[in-house]
Amino acid sequence: MTGRVTLVGGGPGREDLLTVGAVRALGSADVVLYDRLAPHARLAELAPDADLVDVGKQPGHHALPQEEIEALLVAHALAGRHVVRLKGGDPYVFGRGGEEVLACHRAGVPVEVLPGVTSAVSVPGAAGIPLTHRGISRLFTVVSGHAPLSDEELRHLAGLGGTIVVLMGVNTLPQLAAGLARHGMRGSMPVAIVERGFRCDQRTTIADLSGIVSAAGLAGVASPAVIVVGEVVRLAHDGDRTAAELMERAAGFAAVAT
Amino acid sequence: MTGRVTLVGGGPGREDLLTVGAVRALGSADVVLYDRLAPHARLAELAPDADLVDVGKQPGHHALPQEEIEALLVAHALAGRHVVRLKGGDPYVFGRGGEEVLACHRAGVPVEVLPGVTSAVSVPGAAGIPLTHRGISRLFTVVSGHAPLSDEELRHLAGLGGTIVVLMGVNTLPQLAAGLARHGMRGSMPVAIVERGFRCDQRTTIADLSGIVSAAGLAGVASPAVIVVGEVVRLAHDGDRTAAELMERAAGFAAVAT
Repeated sequence: MTGRVTLVGGGPGREDLLTVGAVRALGSADVVLYDRLAPHARLAELAPDADLVDVGKQPGHHALPQEEIEALLVAHALAGRHVVRLKGGDPYVFGRGGEEVLACHRAGVPVEVLPGVTSAVSVPGAAGIPLTHRGISRLFTVVSGHAPLSDEELRHLAGLGGTIVVLMGVNTLPQLAAGLARHGMRGSMPVAIVERGFRCDQRTTIADLSGIVSAAGLAGVASPAVIVVGEVVRLAHDGDRTAAELMERAAGFAAVAT
Repeated sequence: MTGRVTLVGGGPGREDLLTVGAVRALGSADVVLYDRLAPHARLAELAPDADLVDVGKQPGHHALPQEEIEALLVAHALAGRHVVRLKGGDPYVFGRGGEEVLACHRAGVPVEVLPGVTSAVSVPGAAGIPLTHRGISRLFTVVSGHAPLSDEELRHLAGLGGTIVVLMGVNTLPQLAAGLARHGMRGSMPVAIVERGFRCDQRTTIADLSGIVSAAGLAGVASPAVIVVGEVVRLAHDGDRTAAELMERAAGFAAVAT
């Protein structure tokens, strides 16, 4: 009898940000194919009956190519097993979930997708940055910084006036900052880089658009990180600030917004 | 002794899409202020020791004004209680979480934010629509349709070329469709409206940009609903399609993308 596949969004990495459904799926899994960005420290306890297969990148090793992951998903399911594909964030936000769903359909394997807490929203939030805020930002755009954006994309992003969130964007930050500036975004626009969201060594680097590349260089910013561009960055806090400091910042923010 | 506030993203409404952390927070709550869009059917079991206060809109009743919600949060916390503010989706995606955090800071009340599964990503996903897909869309913009978008916003959204997700946009759909068309989006761009995501009566209405307003009218589309504009809509499925149909659709999609 054919098994089934559950694509599970594992959230930004902290175990309590798994959904109840994700925990349930893991508990009944025969095989778990997981990424390093998903919470995996206690997988052996969460999925006690499952073979655990790391298909993500490890230092010095290549990740499994996407086609091989899809072939594995299908092969295990066709052998009658319940396969959980545990991903960081949400399967449909740069998670290639759509491709894995199509691969299952193609092979006649039943597949379900459990959404997760996306890093695009939650990692800025962990630094105190709301992507939307009344009077400030009523839209946000999430882009992959894996490859540099086109000139057309940069022009419309700069013109749109909402919050910009870049995932996997540390390497292309210089092109992003220069491109947005070239298309009219003012140099004083605040930018935040949130590294290692939800880990104990989470760190936020904030500068304005004109200074962010050198600030990132000085700080030695590295992946994984989420970049946020927009006025909402002024609301950032790291939990250690005093209320007075936060109020001062919010006041500065209100002054800008008026 | 001062209590504390936990802002909890309750996800799109299905109980298994609550996070483990959300369930834990509810379990230790003394008061829960909840919205109708958050999963609330079993709140009495999830938060057995808590007073449950509905602060959302009910048919025929007004929602509590935002300032009153903030005053309630602060008052209960200052009285020494653990207050959980349970919201639909994520607190920082049109959830006014930022305002509630500032209200707590202003009053010296400790506040924590637990991110949730945002409807902006998960409701399209429930209809089989991935917001990003390799070769098709590498960015998406989430906007509120509460008020019509400005001409400038429509122009850049139409030009950006990524997926567009509109929350609370049923009433402003005519302006959205006309505006995107006026700014050069082709009439054949597919649009999906996903009503009542994750409920048993979830329904998806699909048409092209030029036909979506009349299709929505014919279908009697109503809130709550999430609107998706973009080529990824061609990947939509409702779980009832045959694999052959899906493959055909994916093929049509590939032809468009080339």
